[in-house]
Amino acid sequence: MNAHEPSLHETMAAIGRRARAAARILAFASTEAKDRALSSAADAIEAEASSILSANAEDVAQAKENGISPAFLDRLTVTDVRLRAIAQGLREIAALPDPVGAVTAEWTRPNGLVISRVRTPLGVIGVIFESRPNVTADAGALTLKSGNAVILRGGSEATRTSHAIHACLLQGLEAAGLPLDAIQMIPTTDRAAVGEMLAGLDGNIDVIVPRGGKTLVARVQDEARVPVFAHLEGLCHTYIEPSVDVRLAVDVTVNAKMRRPGVCGATETLLVHKDAVATHLRPVIDALIVKGCEIRGDEAVRSYYPAAKAATEEDWHTEYEAAILSVKIVEDIGAAIDHITHYGSHHTEAILSEDPASVDRFFTEIDSAILLHNASTQFADGGEFGFGGEIGIATGKFHARGPVGLEQLCSFKYIVRGSGQTRP
Amino acid sequence: MNAHEPSLHETMAAIGRRARAAARILAFASTEAKDRALSSAADAIEAEASSILSANAEDVAQAKENGISPAFLDRLTVTDVRLRAIAQGLREIAALPDPVGAVTAEWTRPNGLVISRVRTPLGVIGVIFESRPNVTADAGALTLKSGNAVILRGGSEATRTSHAIHACLLQGLEAAGLPLDAIQMIPTTDRAAVGEMLAGLDGNIDVIVPRGGKTLVARVQDEARVPVFAHLEGLCHTYIEPSVDVRLAVDVTVNAKMRRPGVCGATETLLVHKDAVATHLRPVIDALIVKGCEIRGDEAVRSYYPAAKAATEEDWHTEYEAAILSVKIVEDIGAAIDHITHYGSHHTEAILSEDPASVDRFFTEIDSAILLHNASTQFADGGEFGFGGEIGIATGKFHARGPVGLEQLCSFKYIVRGSGQTRP
Repeated sequence: MNAHEPSLHETMAAIGRRARAAARILAFASTEAKDRALSSAADAIEAEASSILSANAEDVAQAKENGISPAFLDRLTVTDVRLRAIAQGLREIAALPDPVGAVTAEWTRPNGLVISRVRTPLGVIGVIFESRPNVTADAGALTLKSGNAVILRGGSEATRTSHAIHACLLQGLEAAGLPLDAIQMIPTTDRAAVGEMLAGLDGNIDVIVPRGGKTLVARVQDEARVPVFAHLEGLCHTYIEPSVDVRLAVDVTVNAKMRRPGVCGATETLLVHKDAVATHLRPVIDALIVKGCEIRGDEAVRSYYPAAKAATEEDWHTEYEAAILSVKIVEDIGAAIDHITHYGSHHTEAILSEDPASVDRFFTEIDSAILLHNASTQFADGGEFGFGGEIGIATGKFHARGPVGLEQLCSFKYIVRGSGQTRP
Repeated sequence: MNAHEPSLHETMAAIGRRARAAARILAFASTEAKDRALSSAADAIEAEASSILSANAEDVAQAKENGISPAFLDRLTVTDVRLRAIAQGLREIAALPDPVGAVTAEWTRPNGLVISRVRTPLGVIGVIFESRPNVTADAGALTLKSGNAVILRGGSEATRTSHAIHACLLQGLEAAGLPLDAIQMIPTTDRAAVGEMLAGLDGNIDVIVPRGGKTLVARVQDEARVPVFAHLEGLCHTYIEPSVDVRLAVDVTVNAKMRRPGVCGATETLLVHKDAVATHLRPVIDALIVKGCEIRGDEAVRSYYPAAKAATEEDWHTEYEAAILSVKIVEDIGAAIDHITHYGSHHTEAILSEDPASVDRFFTEIDSAILLHNASTQFADGGEFGFGGEIGIATGKFHARGPVGLEQLCSFKYIVRGSGQTRP
């Protein structure tokens, strides 16, 4: 006799209900229990290394059969070194301060009421990711430490690896006596499961974090009925003024573009003040070309580099995620700010200058999540900010902006201590 | 020859574009200019008092013709005293510290980068309100001081009054040399204009604040395509333990219910620990009955007050907004927390107790925006929190929670100061 086969909708709804129940317990789980779960999970990952690596080998073999790209293959592949880094990452998150319960403000009213603002978990986080199986561990650890339950939905190509890592996280939860439903992984690769998550599982997902390419992020931002922490584009700018040291401009700009051209904090457009053309333009562009960067310039740039492609209107709008840079000469800082406001994605911008008035104006008038002075845009990263890890970078204006670490995975409540006060 | 008559959609889209342009300027307007605009607006309200009052008299006369309720009429009516309070409110907001540009955190990384988190305006706020014309001034002032542009959409019954007050705000902006589009009022009473606002005016509204009854808030929460700061219900609880002084329990509970039974922070359900029944229940309930409160009790309560109506399942779910209180005897603090978690609206709850373990558990395990110890739930108010005013109270977990004042109308960005750092 066949039992009733639950529909995908029923399966997903049940996952949501279990996550909510786990979140209620996790919200006031002790720091000690959460940290024990994380370090036990790290131990488990090291103990199970060979089985995780062989699961990954199967995923990789299948992916090769399906003819995926080398970049995708690189993201999918787990090596022994990478696996040890994953375990180390869990231990580092265990070592971070617990954000839950932290008092972020406290004041006393004239009537004697003492008001505190205290950090609380957000609840249930839905993480939708693509090929990187390490997201299982990173996202699971950050959400656990911040007292949230998580529902993970990984790409089908990484299924075996993700489940093997997930099993280690469950061992950690079990060792700490925490509910196993705190870190759930969607058991099906049915793409409709993503739609169910975006609809919010009957109010049982509080926020969605997409980890992947533009297609995924755009779908999530379009369809999600719950808040989303994400950025669609990292169209970052570096702007050079004549007052800055040429050597600094060369080093920082080359790093901002070429350290890893594919990350979201990579500079995509270089703006150069017209008075810096004679002094700074050539050394900076030469250094970029030597490193293998393709230059697309406006007319003024091409008068120095006739071999450079002409930048089109589309170039100023493009996040290349590759060793290509669009370069424009601007009249003054006002023109630089206007360009960034018009074409930017509110992610990260840098000014290289020794003029305090320009730096102030850049910091005041540009509305991006991260603004840097005399430093590389590639510092746009939760680890580099000292957050001890990030679940992503957000460009929205609400709640989380910039790197999303433990504190940004929390909400807050007000605690008011009285002695019989009534309101007049 | 007739010119092209713009459609409602075109009119609203143009309002959105003008608001966005004004927001860009307002984002870095000086504190001095914003404060001058507010105090000039206060002067204008006093100077134009007679014309505002006669506009209000017309609104009131028309509303009476349409046979509106006395409560509605009270909210609609502006008296000389209320008008002076409105002007005073503008001056008080001018006197508050400017939230924009405030550094809320700053730290130095091992590589020498100095990272600051700085408050920034959210952008454009849409405020949709019903009968209270003073919202025009309150919302206009709070959004201006926090560097945001605002689009106001008031109820049709208050049109003449709202526009008269709005004209004074424009005088203030003009006196300070700030863009008049910083505070716009929708010129039409066409209800479709609300739909246009909820759709976000092509990305030109960043957040919607509904100020009004449940029907309005529910519509906004259902239909809005942009974030909403609101609470649908204030189903607040007060819980009494035996350890608390009887006099304190009586005073605080009567205040929590009866000070103003219609406000969102009014207690709707009273929970009494079973060991407090013999000592606390009768004095508290007697005092409430004397004040004219109707009691709806569970069986245990009705064994003491046989005349009390039996509370139904629906009662525990009901925000009466009236002099009615549902009362339940609970086994222990765990049962009180379970009841609040199941039936509450995450708004405001109070525990009256001298047992620190109970208070801790109440504060830790309940996830409401505001939790109080030995004080009245009617303290749920931005003014009482020392925020100098509020645009509403939010029960969501994101960004703004509890009273929404100047700081909550702001976002933030990270400013990173370097000296040539590149990322390894």
